[in-house]
Amino acid sequence: MNIAALLTSAGINIAVCVVLFSLYSVLRKQPGNVNVYFGQRLSSQYSRRLDQCLERFVPSPSWILKAWETSEDEILATGGLDAVVFVRILVFSIRIFSIAAVICTVLVLPVNYHGGERMHTHIPFESLDVFTIENVKEGSKWLWAHCLALYIITLAACTLLYFEYKSITNLKLVHIIGSPPNPSHFAILVRSIPWSSEESYCDTVKKFFSYYHPSTYLSHQMVYKSGTVQKLKDDAEQVCKVIRDASLENTCKPSFTQCWCSGGTTNSFKMISNEIGIDSVHGRMGYNDKHLDVRKKECPAAFVFFKNRYAALIAAQTPQSSNPMLWVTDLAPEPHDVYWSNICIPYRQLWIRKIATLVASIVFMIVFLIPVTFVQSLTQLDKLQKMLPFMTRMLKKKFVVQVVSGYLPSVILVLFLCAVPPVMMLFSAVEGSISRSGRKKSACCKVLYFTIWNVFFVNVFAGSIISQLLVFSSVTDLPTQLAKAVPSQATFFTTYVFSSGWASLAIEVMQIYPLLCNLFRRVILRIKDDSQGGSLSFPYHTEIPRILLFGFLGFTSAILAPLMLPFLLFYFFLAYLVYRNQIINVYIAKYDSGGQFWPIAHNTTVFSLIVAQVIALGVFGLKRSTVASGFTIPLLIGTLLFHQYCRQRFLPVFRSNSAKILVDMDRRDEHSGKMGDIYDHLRSAYNQSSLMQDASNQPQCFSHHEDKRNDMSSEDIEKGKEIIQKDDRPWYVNRTLSSKAVLGAK
Amino acid sequence: MNIAALLTSAGINIAVCVVLFSLYSVLRKQPGNVNVYFGQRLSSQYSRRLDQCLERFVPSPSWILKAWETSEDEILATGGLDAVVFVRILVFSIRIFSIAAVICTVLVLPVNYHGGERMHTHIPFESLDVFTIENVKEGSKWLWAHCLALYIITLAACTLLYFEYKSITNLKLVHIIGSPPNPSHFAILVRSIPWSSEESYCDTVKKFFSYYHPSTYLSHQMVYKSGTVQKLKDDAEQVCKVIRDASLENTCKPSFTQCWCSGGTTNSFKMISNEIGIDSVHGRMGYNDKHLDVRKKECPAAFVFFKNRYAALIAAQTPQSSNPMLWVTDLAPEPHDVYWSNICIPYRQLWIRKIATLVASIVFMIVFLIPVTFVQSLTQLDKLQKMLPFMTRMLKKKFVVQVVSGYLPSVILVLFLCAVPPVMMLFSAVEGSISRSGRKKSACCKVLYFTIWNVFFVNVFAGSIISQLLVFSSVTDLPTQLAKAVPSQATFFTTYVFSSGWASLAIEVMQIYPLLCNLFRRVILRIKDDSQGGSLSFPYHTEIPRILLFGFLGFTSAILAPLMLPFLLFYFFLAYLVYRNQIINVYIAKYDSGGQFWPIAHNTTVFSLIVAQVIALGVFGLKRSTVASGFTIPLLIGTLLFHQYCRQRFLPVFRSNSAKILVDMDRRDEHSGKMGDIYDHLRSAYNQSSLMQDASNQPQCFSHHEDKRNDMSSEDIEKGKEIIQKDDRPWYVNRTLSSKAVLGAK
Repeated sequence: MNIAALLTSAGINIAVCVVLFSLYSVLRKQPGNVNVYFGQRLSSQYSRRLDQCLERFVPSPSWILKAWETSEDEILATGGLDAVVFVRILVFSIRIFSIAAVICTVLVLPVNYHGGERMHTHIPFESLDVFTIENVKEGSKWLWAHCLALYIITLAACTLLYFEYKSITNLKLVHIIGSPPNPSHFAILVRSIPWSSEESYCDTVKKFFSYYHPSTYLSHQMVYKSGTVQKLKDDAEQVCKVIRDASLENTCKPSFTQCWCSGGTTNSFKMISNEIGIDSVHGRMGYNDKHLDVRKKECPAAFVFFKNRYAALIAAQTPQSSNPMLWVTDLAPEPHDVYWSNICIPYRQLWIRKIATLVASIVFMIVFLIPVTFVQSLTQLDKLQKMLPFMTRMLKKKFVVQVVSGYLPSVILVLFLCAVPPVMMLFSAVEGSISRSGRKKSACCKVLYFTIWNVFFVNVFAGSIISQLLVFSSVTDLPTQLAKAVPSQATFFTTYVFSSGWASLAIEVMQIYPLLCNLFRRVILRIKDDSQGGSLSFPYHTEIPRILLFGFLGFTSAILAPLMLPFLLFYFFLAYLVYRNQIINVYIAKYDSGGQFWPIAHNTTVFSLIVAQVIALGVFGLKRSTVASGFTIPLLIGTLLFHQYCRQRFLPVFRSNSAKILVDMDRRDEHSGKMGDIYDHLRSAYNQSSLMQDASNQPQCFSHHEDKRNDMSSEDIEKGKEIIQKDDRPWYVNRTLSSKAVLGAK
Repeated sequence: MNIAALLTSAGINIAVCVVLFSLYSVLRKQPGNVNVYFGQRLSSQYSRRLDQCLERFVPSPSWILKAWETSEDEILATGGLDAVVFVRILVFSIRIFSIAAVICTVLVLPVNYHGGERMHTHIPFESLDVFTIENVKEGSKWLWAHCLALYIITLAACTLLYFEYKSITNLKLVHIIGSPPNPSHFAILVRSIPWSSEESYCDTVKKFFSYYHPSTYLSHQMVYKSGTVQKLKDDAEQVCKVIRDASLENTCKPSFTQCWCSGGTTNSFKMISNEIGIDSVHGRMGYNDKHLDVRKKECPAAFVFFKNRYAALIAAQTPQSSNPMLWVTDLAPEPHDVYWSNICIPYRQLWIRKIATLVASIVFMIVFLIPVTFVQSLTQLDKLQKMLPFMTRMLKKKFVVQVVSGYLPSVILVLFLCAVPPVMMLFSAVEGSISRSGRKKSACCKVLYFTIWNVFFVNVFAGSIISQLLVFSSVTDLPTQLAKAVPSQATFFTTYVFSSGWASLAIEVMQIYPLLCNLFRRVILRIKDDSQGGSLSFPYHTEIPRILLFGFLGFTSAILAPLMLPFLLFYFFLAYLVYRNQIINVYIAKYDSGGQFWPIAHNTTVFSLIVAQVIALGVFGLKRSTVASGFTIPLLIGTLLFHQYCRQRFLPVFRSNSAKILVDMDRRDEHSGKMGDIYDHLRSAYNQSSLMQDASNQPQCFSHHEDKRNDMSSEDIEKGKEIIQKDDRPWYVNRTLSSKAVLGAK
C-alpha cells in the first residue's frame, strides 16, 4: 500500500463523515426526530420545543460549537460521573497523542524515512513501509531517536495519567460529599439468608439485624422472585378483602399498619395472620397456605436500611457470619441501578457462574478468530488470488485493489465486531452482577480484552489458528515476534482508524437504528406522539473499549509507524465533539458506576505503554542496538513501579468510601435535621415493582429522579471541593471546615 | 541405581536415625540438658525436677509413647493453634499416603514391573527404573491402572482436604470464641498518621479517633522509635525531677496523672509542659526542647484501643481517610507478636519494600541454581568422571559409588538448603511485616516456593541454567518435558526422602545446636544455672515447607514411581512422633498466627495434585494412551473447581473475624462485667519497653503470659464448640445458646 492508497481510504472516509455529519445537522432540526436526538433533554423536561427557524434544512455546525462550549460541570450534571470520566479519557488521549505526534513527526519520521539506503521515489507513490522503523538499517546509530521518543511519550503519559487519576479521585470524593442523600448510601444488600423451617426470611433478617446491629438497624425490604411481584400485589389485595370480611364477622379489627420489614403493601397481611384463625376465613384459600405461598416467593435476599451511612458501610464490609457463604453483604446499588433478576440467584451458584462465564468468553474469543483470519487474508492480495482465482481479473483494476486492500478488511472486521458487545453483555448478566452498572463494567472489561486480543494480537500474528496459539507458548520470543510483526501491520491499523474509528463516530452521531425505528413508527404506524422520551443509556461497554483500543494502537505504533498519529489525533478530536454532544443531548444517565471506568482506562493505558516498550525492546534487539535496548529496560521497570504506586495510592478510593467522609456527611445531615426525611424516603426507594416496571418499559416521567445526583447544586460541589482539597491537612482543620459547612447548611 | 544401592542408602540412614534417637533418649534424661529438651515445660513451670531414676543411661522409647498419647487438646494448650495445624498437616499426609501406598502397591507397581518386555533379573540387582512407569511400553492397555490410581488418590486427597479445612476452620472459631479476652481483639494498629506542625502525633490520633469514633474509642498508645524507648524513660525521669524542683518554686503542683494517650510513664511530662513556662525551669534543657525531642522520637504509628472487639474490627477494616496512604489501620497483633522495629517503617515505603524483596527472592532462587546443578551432576557418575578425572580410580569401588550416587548429593543439597531459611526470614523482615507470626508466615511461603523450585523443578530439568530458564518459555511443552524428566529423577527423590527427611528428623529431635551451646556453657564456662528456660519458638518456616515438599514429591511420584511411597510414609510417621514430642517439650508458643499456615498447606497440596495430573497427562501422551489422557483432563478441571470452592467457603474465616462472633463475645463479657478488668489490662498490654526487652533477651518468667491462649480451660473450648456446631442453624438458636453461655459465665 502506498501513500495514494492511504489517501484514497482517508478520502472515502472523510467524504462519508462529512455527508453523515451534515445529514445529522439537518435531521436533528426536524421536530419528528426530537426523541431520537434529544432524549436527554426530553427526559429532563428542559424545552420540548426546539428552535423551529427557517434554516431547518440547511446543514450547520452549531452542534459542534455547543458540544465544544459545554463545561465539565454541565457534563457532570447531565451524564453523571461516568460521563465525565469518559470525556477525561478522550482529553487524556488528545493530550498524549498531541505530544506523541509532535515528537514523532519531528524526531522519528525523518529518521525512518532517511534510515535506509534505498532511492526515494515521488512521495505519493512511496510505500508506507518507508515511513516505518523497518526502513532503518540494522545497527543504525539513529535508533537513539526512537528510544528518546519512547522515553518522552512514556514520561508524558505517566505524568498525565497521574494527574488525571488524582483529579478524578478528587472529583469522585467531591461528588460523594456534595451529593444529596442517596438511598444507596444507607442500604446494604444481604444475600444468602439462611433458610429456617420456622420463620420466613423476612423475620430472620429482622431478628438478625436487630440483634447484631441494634443501634443502627432501621428497616429492611425483602426481594421477591422476579415476575411474582405483580402477582403478589394482586394476591395481597384479594387477601385484604377476605380479611376485611372475616374481621367483620369476628368483630376484631385487623391492623393494616405498614409492615416495616416488607416492601410496602406486598405482604402486610402476614402480620395479622396470627391474630385471625384459619377457621374464620371464608376465602378460597387459608391464610397459612397464602403465607406459605408468599414465603415460597421470597428470595433469600433483602435490602437492609441503616440509620446512617457509616453503619451501612460497616455492615457491608464486615463478614456477618462465621460461615462466609451465609449472610453475604454488599453495599446496595442505587435504586435504578439494581439488576433485579440477578439478586435472587443463589449465592452458592455465583462462583461457578463466574468461572463458566470466563470459560465461555475465552471460547468465544477463540472461535472469533475465524472471521478475523479471513479478514486478514484480504490485505494480502497475492494470497487471496491464490484462494479465489476467479477474482484475479477484477483485482487487476487499480481502484478495486485500493478499496479491497485499504477499506474492505476493516469494514468486515467492524461488522463482525458489532456482534460482540451484546454477547459480552449477556455473559456479564449470567455472571450474576447485582447492579446494572456492574454488569456494564464487567462487559466493558470483556469487550476490551476481546477487542485488543482480536484486533491487535490476532492481526499481528496473522496466520492459522494453530500458529497463533503457538506464538504464546514461547514467552521469551514474544518481543522479537512482536517486533517483526507490528511494523508490517501498521498500514492495516492506520486504515482501521479511518474505517472503524471515523465511520463509527459518524454512525454514533446519526443514531441510525433509533432513527429508523422512529421513521417506522411515524411513517408506517402513523404514531405522532413524540413524548416517548429517549430510553438509551450511554453504551460505555462498547465506546470505552473502542477508545482504549485506539489508544493502544497509537502507543504501540507511535515510534514504529508515526504516520498513523495525525489520523488518530483527528479521531480523538472528532470523538471529543461527538461524544460530548451525545452526552448532552441523547443519552440518559439512569445509573452511574461512580467513575469505576477510570481504573480500567488507567490500567489499559499502562498496559499499552508496556506492550509498546516490549515491542521497542524487540525492535532494538532486531536492529542490533544494544544501547537503545539497554535504556528501554529501566523504562519498563519504571512504568511497572508507577502502575503499582497508582494502584495503592488511588485505587482504594474507587473500592470503598472512607469512614471520615461518611461520618462527616452523617453529621451534616443530623445537624441539619434532614434524617427524618431521608428515613421516610428510604421506605419507598427500593420499591421492586415500580423499579422493575421502570427497567422494562421506559418511564414517561423522571420526576422520581429528583433526588438523584443530577441536581447537585454548584454550591454543594464547591463545599465538597473545599473539604477534599484540605484532606491532606491534619484532620482538625477539616473539622473546622466541616462544622462550618454544617453551620452553613443550617 | 539398583535396589541394593537403595537399601544401602536406607540402611545408612536407619542406622544414623536409630543411633541418634537412642542418644536422644539418653541425653534427655540428663539433668544438665533439661533446658535444651524441656524448654516448654520449664517455661510453664510444670516440674523442674524430672525422674532421676537409675535408668538414666539406658535408651528407652518412653518419649515415643508420650508423644503418641498426647491429645489434641493438650497440643492446643501447649503449642497453640499453629501447632495443631502442623500436626494436622502430618496426619493428613499419613492418611493420604497410606491410601496412595496401598493403591499403588496393589495396582500400579505390578503393572510397572511387568509392563516392559525385558527379562527380569534377581530383584536385589534390578534397576529401580523397572519399577517406574518408564518400564511400561508405549500404547499399553494397562495405563488405565495408572489413571484409576490417579483418580482414587485425587478424590481421596480432595475429600480429606475438605474435611480437614472444615474441621480446622471450626477449631479456629471455637478457639476464638472460647479464648479469654485478648488485648489484640480490642486494639488496632494505626500507621501513617499525618504529620502536623502544630501538634504531636499523639494529640492528632487522640483528636481523630475521639471525633470519628466517639462512642467506641477508649485510648491509644504511641509507638516510639526502636532503641529510644529506654532513653526516653531515663530522660522522663530526669525531667520529672526538674519539674518537681520548678513546681516547688512556682508553688503550683504538677499533676503526674498517667497520660492516657501515652504508653505509660514515657511522656507524661507533656501534659504539664503548658502549665509551667520555660523560664521557671532550672534544668539544662527547656521543656519545649524536650517536648520537640519526644516528638521527634514518636513514630507516625499508634495502637488504638476500643471499647469492644467489634468496634476494633470495624476500625481496622474500614478505610479511615479518603487518602488511602493516610490513617492506615490493621488489626493489632498480639502483644508478644508485635514486630516493633517494623512498625516505625513509613507506610509509603512498604510497597517498594515488598517489590524489592520479591525481586531479591527471585534473584536468590536463580543464583542458588549453581550448587544445585553441581549436586545434580553427582548422580550422573560418568559426567563426574569426565569433570574430575582423578576420582576415576576411587569411583571404581562399588561401595564408594553407592555412597556417592545414593547419599552424597542429598547431603550437599541439605547443607546448602540450611542457609535458605535465615535469608528468607531476613527478606520477610525487610518486607515490613508488623507481626512476628506474619513474618514467619511470609518466610514460610518464600521457603516453600524456593524449596519446591530448587529441589523439584531444577533437579527435574537438570542441565545448565540457561536451559532451565528456556524450559519455562515453552508452556505447552511443559507436560511432555515433565513426563520425560520426572520418572528418571524418581531415584534421586527417593534418596532425598532418606537423607533430607529421616536425617532431618533425627537432627531435629537432637537439637544439636542448643545442645552444643549448653555443653559449652556447662563445661567451658562452668555455669551451673539451668533456670535459663528454652527460648526457641517452633520453626514453622522451615518445617512446614519441608513436609509440604515431601508431600509434593509423594503426589508427583505416586503413580510414576510408587516405590518411594513406603519410605515416605515411614517419614511421615516418624515426623508425627518427633514433632509432637518437640511441641510438648521443647518449643515455646510465644505467638500464634491463628492457623494461618493451613491455607498455605491446602494450596500447596492442591498445587501438588495439579502438577501430578499434568505430569500424568504428559506421560499418558508419551505412551500414546488417549483414553487415559482424556480421562485426566476432567480430573484436572475438577481439582481446580474444588480449589476455588474451598477458597470461597473457608478462606474468608482466616482473613477476618465475623461480626456475629465478636458481638456475641462482647455481649458475654459485658454481661459478666469483665469489661472493666479488660480495659485496665489494655493500658499495660502493649508496653513497648518491656515487650521489646522480652523480644531481645528472653524473659525468665512467663507470668505475664497468664492471660494468653494457653490457659484456655476445657470448659471454654466446649462452650465454643457448642456455639460453632450450631452455626448453621438460624441465628436465634445461637442467641439462646450464647445467652445461656452468658448466664453460665455469671
